[in-house]
Amino acid sequence: MTGNETRTTAVEAYLRGLQDRLCTLFESFEPQARFRQDLWQRPAGGGGDTRVLADGAVFESAGVNFSRIEGRTLPAAASARHPELAGRPFLATGVSVVVHPRNPHVPTSHMNVRYFEAGEVCWFGGGFDLTPYYPRLEDVRSWHQAAADACAPFGDDIYRRFKKHCDEYFYLPHRGETRGVGGLFFDDLNSGDFARDFALQQSVGDHYLSAYEPIVTRRKDTPYGTREVDFQRYRRGRYVEFNLVYDRGTLFGLQSGGRTESILMSLPRQVEWRYDWQPEPGSPEAELGNYLRPRDWL
Amino acid sequence: MTGNETRTTAVEAYLRGLQDRLCTLFESFEPQARFRQDLWQRPAGGGGDTRVLADGAVFESAGVNFSRIEGRTLPAAASARHPELAGRPFLATGVSVVVHPRNPHVPTSHMNVRYFEAGEVCWFGGGFDLTPYYPRLEDVRSWHQAAADACAPFGDDIYRRFKKHCDEYFYLPHRGETRGVGGLFFDDLNSGDFARDFALQQSVGDHYLSAYEPIVTRRKDTPYGTREVDFQRYRRGRYVEFNLVYDRGTLFGLQSGGRTESILMSLPRQVEWRYDWQPEPGSPEAELGNYLRPRDWL
Repeated sequence: MTGNETRTTAVEAYLRGLQDRLCTLFESFEPQARFRQDLWQRPAGGGGDTRVLADGAVFESAGVNFSRIEGRTLPAAASARHPELAGRPFLATGVSVVVHPRNPHVPTSHMNVRYFEAGEVCWFGGGFDLTPYYPRLEDVRSWHQAAADACAPFGDDIYRRFKKHCDEYFYLPHRGETRGVGGLFFDDLNSGDFARDFALQQSVGDHYLSAYEPIVTRRKDTPYGTREVDFQRYRRGRYVEFNLVYDRGTLFGLQSGGRTESILMSLPRQVEWRYDWQPEPGSPEAELGNYLRPRDWL
Repeated sequence: MTGNETRTTAVEAYLRGLQDRLCTLFESFEPQARFRQDLWQRPAGGGGDTRVLADGAVFESAGVNFSRIEGRTLPAAASARHPELAGRPFLATGVSVVVHPRNPHVPTSHMNVRYFEAGEVCWFGGGFDLTPYYPRLEDVRSWHQAAADACAPFGDDIYRRFKKHCDEYFYLPHRGETRGVGGLFFDDLNSGDFARDFALQQSVGDHYLSAYEPIVTRRKDTPYGTREVDFQRYRRGRYVEFNLVYDRGTLFGLQSGGRTESILMSLPRQVEWRYDWQPEPGSPEAELGNYLRPRDWL
């Protein structure tokens, strides 16, 4: 194997193991619902392993997607740092997770770890972010503590930088608000030390599990009614707006001829738009607005 | 007044009258629901008159938006034909209509007529298209007959060209299907004869009313149940996908700092995504697929 092949094999092994661990974790919350697996080939090269759990007791939908695609021309959306690589042969592999819980007190969460090679250049990207409907400070703090813990072994400044990048990336200009309370986001990561960068990616993937599990456990049995479900559906509209208008991962997938159903599994199941709706001042629904501006949570 | 001002005044008068006629028509179907009016100013110049009817007996939502905005830098999404005008001062005025009926047997419809000036150049754009859930050949034919009638006084080839443009524009590459059964779409219309172009725009606006009214009348009392509503919500997901990923009108509005709620009033109220769902072969839901490929309907 070439050096490239050795690296790719190691990354892919981590990603496939991570996918299994994620599915095991989510199924552990479910008395009956199980992941459905779809293996798919991409006509232009590569393929993937899409796993979706639908209509669970705890999760309305949970999608855990592994893909490894190869292509002749890197889409422009793939790299902000290396525009000169657009159009070159590439390999992209990653795991994406989007979890939409049923209980509006449990936040939606997203995690992605990905690895690219184009020509002689390779880089990592990824991160995780949390989208609560009825935010609790305790959850937001424990989430960001896990994010900081994931980064701590790799340098004093990493969490602050990745957290800032996350706040900037998951932002809806037309709404003037962030998608949620953020977490970590990094892209074009290539420090020149592959082993270190790969270890950082693994730390991010691993810490997503330990960050999200306790939040689900704490909130999944909180009582709720139609008011909370209505608000959850309304807010899920913002999630759709972000993913379809701004998200580079979604655009990359659609541009590169990805499998549409695997890309759009990130969309929530039940969504509602209401013209010019505003929460009542002082209500729990209005409180969310205070969480959708970047802040130091630790 | 300059020639430009005279033209702008005439176009605006037509558009404002059209907005009134549309609201009157939609309210005539409703025993109780009425349009709410929001007048708004755009900080960077201009403003609009947004009218939304929500939760009607016949219409789940109907939005009829007039806007006239002026700006210092034309967004790139405004003109495909005149990329050199991007960044120049501009005026854009138009009426947009999106109607999402409650009964799944009544198709969603969309109409837009717009007028641009940038520097010494002015042009019209617009069109209308129909998005059925349970299509009826009679409706699709009468819709396209109205479209052909709208164009007939202006040349033998106009309907064919605008119909083709509509099929090409309202297409979702990632789904391999059109948004609906089409109609008319035109852009960058400037034949050098302002009066003729303006008359064509008026004909398109006027024929939308006469095209849609009989379809609503024919289908609004057709019985339906949860199966049809579920399918309607699922298909509305495609409407959202088109508007947020591809629609130049939406992108233009968001890029130019438009009023978000007026732009996104095009989105349906209740929407559902389901992973990898397929209609049963031979079912009424599967029949829709046969309508989502361009065809000569007349």
